[in-house]
Amino acid sequence: MTSVSEDVGSAPADPAGAPPGVRLDAAELHASVSDPVLTSMTLLNEIAGRYPDAVSFAAGRPYEGFYEVARLGGHLQTFERHLRDDLGLGPEDVRRTFFQYGRTKGFIHHLIAGHLSNDERTVVDPEAVVVTTGCQEAMVLVLRALRRDHRDVVLAAYPAYVGFLGATRIVDMPVRPVAEGPGGIDLADLAGQIRRARAEGLRPRACYVVPDFANPSGVSMSAADRRSLLDLAEREDILVLEDNPYSMFHSGGGRLPTVKSMDTGRRVVYFGSFAKTAFAGARVGYVVADQPMADGALFADELAKLKSMLTLNTSTVAQAVVGGFLLENDCSVERATVREAQVYRRNLRAVLTGLRERFGDHGPVPDSGVSWNVPEGGMFVVVTLPFRADDAMLEYSADRFGVLWTPMHHFYAGDGGSHQIRLSFSVLSAERIGLGLDRLAALVADRVRP
Amino acid sequence: MTSVSEDVGSAPADPAGAPPGVRLDAAELHASVSDPVLTSMTLLNEIAGRYPDAVSFAAGRPYEGFYEVARLGGHLQTFERHLRDDLGLGPEDVRRTFFQYGRTKGFIHHLIAGHLSNDERTVVDPEAVVVTTGCQEAMVLVLRALRRDHRDVVLAAYPAYVGFLGATRIVDMPVRPVAEGPGGIDLADLAGQIRRARAEGLRPRACYVVPDFANPSGVSMSAADRRSLLDLAEREDILVLEDNPYSMFHSGGGRLPTVKSMDTGRRVVYFGSFAKTAFAGARVGYVVADQPMADGALFADELAKLKSMLTLNTSTVAQAVVGGFLLENDCSVERATVREAQVYRRNLRAVLTGLRERFGDHGPVPDSGVSWNVPEGGMFVVVTLPFRADDAMLEYSADRFGVLWTPMHHFYAGDGGSHQIRLSFSVLSAERIGLGLDRLAALVADRVRP
Repeated sequence: MTSVSEDVGSAPADPAGAPPGVRLDAAELHASVSDPVLTSMTLLNEIAGRYPDAVSFAAGRPYEGFYEVARLGGHLQTFERHLRDDLGLGPEDVRRTFFQYGRTKGFIHHLIAGHLSNDERTVVDPEAVVVTTGCQEAMVLVLRALRRDHRDVVLAAYPAYVGFLGATRIVDMPVRPVAEGPGGIDLADLAGQIRRARAEGLRPRACYVVPDFANPSGVSMSAADRRSLLDLAEREDILVLEDNPYSMFHSGGGRLPTVKSMDTGRRVVYFGSFAKTAFAGARVGYVVADQPMADGALFADELAKLKSMLTLNTSTVAQAVVGGFLLENDCSVERATVREAQVYRRNLRAVLTGLRERFGDHGPVPDSGVSWNVPEGGMFVVVTLPFRADDAMLEYSADRFGVLWTPMHHFYAGDGGSHQIRLSFSVLSAERIGLGLDRLAALVADRVRP
Repeated sequence: MTSVSEDVGSAPADPAGAPPGVRLDAAELHASVSDPVLTSMTLLNEIAGRYPDAVSFAAGRPYEGFYEVARLGGHLQTFERHLRDDLGLGPEDVRRTFFQYGRTKGFIHHLIAGHLSNDERTVVDPEAVVVTTGCQEAMVLVLRALRRDHRDVVLAAYPAYVGFLGATRIVDMPVRPVAEGPGGIDLADLAGQIRRARAEGLRPRACYVVPDFANPSGVSMSAADRRSLLDLAEREDILVLEDNPYSMFHSGGGRLPTVKSMDTGRRVVYFGSFAKTAFAGARVGYVVADQPMADGALFADELAKLKSMLTLNTSTVAQAVVGGFLLENDCSVERATVREAQVYRRNLRAVLTGLRERFGDHGPVPDSGVSWNVPEGGMFVVVTLPFRADDAMLEYSADRFGVLWTPMHHFYAGDGGSHQIRLSFSVLSAERIGLGLDRLAALVADRVRP
């Protein structure tokens, strides 16, 4: 912290008699404040904000066409009835549940366990569930717990979800990048990275993966690879941090088993989100942490201790709204999101078809040098361009061609993805997707035939 | 992390073929998990839970007699109307406000600025307000930002609010204790502690105070001392962290100016809470951080960057409910809590009168050696006992006499307050207060006349 007063040794009044006042310098704040991981999203939003009429393949938010404000009150009533009729709470306890500080681990844990059993065939102990202020808080809690000192590191497939990278920055946890292929994390590279970290005197504590339709790459792990990852975690004595926000949104090929569902050795800490299913603004997520502690408690109980000093309980009204949402759908999120899943499937098809039409072998620019991956679900497709796709190019693309996308280098913490962009299609109509891809094709034509 | 597999070098299957499984050791997790500050509240709650019929002077939660679940839906509707009629949002933007990820700094900042102006005569820039997941998150954000490396320390009057101490543990920020007298923080000791810290090569960044009816001590700072604290902060180039959850609940003598209201030099980071006014479960609080950054942004914007990786935006439904609560009371929290304030005043009088009747000069045990302070508002009174009042004594008190209280040593991080207890009276009736004090008197009689 610097101030005028510091420069002169004592605090002089300015001519008007007012104190000189404080001025803070980012260089004197925690390093995360200036970390590209935390600043890049602000920058990207700022660019997007200046081009409100552009077609945006950048927005990662869920489709909002089916939301109705009037239903929120209904969810609250449903949950109130559940407390009264199903759980047998008296009026005072119902009122207390809604209004007071509550159980740190949350009060919709039993409904979340029901959802995991119904939708993911994953059986978990409700006592191992910690309801959190979005999945983001869950990641911070787990990383905070695992980062004891400077030797503790976490592994993650790169490109990685920027929220996970941000969480590591908040708790000063270094990330060791692992290569990712078309089938998700490269397990041989993971084993190699663990060995290298140990050779450097570090302690690899866990590996973060999004096995289904990862953000940003869209790729998925095979069932065999999920099993192998678990075996590797057991062999190497690390935890698996499984994050699963998108599995509902497969393109019709069905659901693969979660890593957690195979986890007989309790190696997996499982992150869940309602941001893409109930709604993002609620800020309700959770973590399943059923690892036994030496004293007989669960890892979830240790996380709850940390949570009690971070946010206390997750907002009661937010939990009640999500609880009502679950109850109204018999604790099946898949059933609750049938319409959203159709939108995402339709849009994924539109993007893949549209890319083929414009950049495929029989398209207007057969040798465009543009390629892309073909995810089997989720909200993202990655396109590789024959030119550098950095923030300056994004600005150019928005300004000249009216199309926004996300430069992939942001998901590599600065080192990688220089020619790749992420197309997010969750909030677009098929028509806007077509228009956006036309504009992307115009950008490509501009760049490759100058 | 240890596991059976580590001991033998490779992972043997047990006879049944199941993997050996993980077992975590708290000693290998972040130190905060085992810190007494985080574990003591769990312990106290556990003791309290075993004596449900005891009169509890331990519970710090707000009075709940006036809460009505049915009003939550009304608050949501009020806020929806506000978005539509006052702010002119169209249906899509209203829906987006309720359901989507939103502005990281929150969307009820203008209403909070209105409340501060109406109730506290404190004028703040709404852009400097960050709405947080309870005041707890606000404290974590500010401490996370200020704790750049091992040299950064924060000062706090002891006994200190346990939530603040917990927040320091989460971000590894050492606390330098400052003495507290009947008029709040000892300013001479504060200056001395800052000097001593600097002599040790440390950077004192800020001093945390609760000027009105502090938790746990109940003491308040005079207007003159508030001014002197600000002068000292200016002179010593530190920030003041002002936390104000209780100022509404003065015992009739009116309100003193907030330190923030005198803050022409932007030295004060102001923490606000709705836990004791709207309701605790909402988890809506805020921080006013109007300090200019070197690049022209506000400190609030830096805090928002951190928040975007901790919880993203504060739950939209929780903000909307608190927003509706504010709107229905013309942005006056004082007006909204007239009934609660009467309950707390009545209860404070009942405790003080009851203590005088039982332990005063003309009471049944005139030389009991029991003394207490006389707060002018708030929710807490501190009683000094002629014997050690530790957790074992609490257990004895609950078991033998049916009365619960909070040992003050928990607010000293282990060093101080050994003979003191905090009496919290927010959720009791006058009758229960009388019964509880009878039981406390019986405990005292048992201990001093063995």
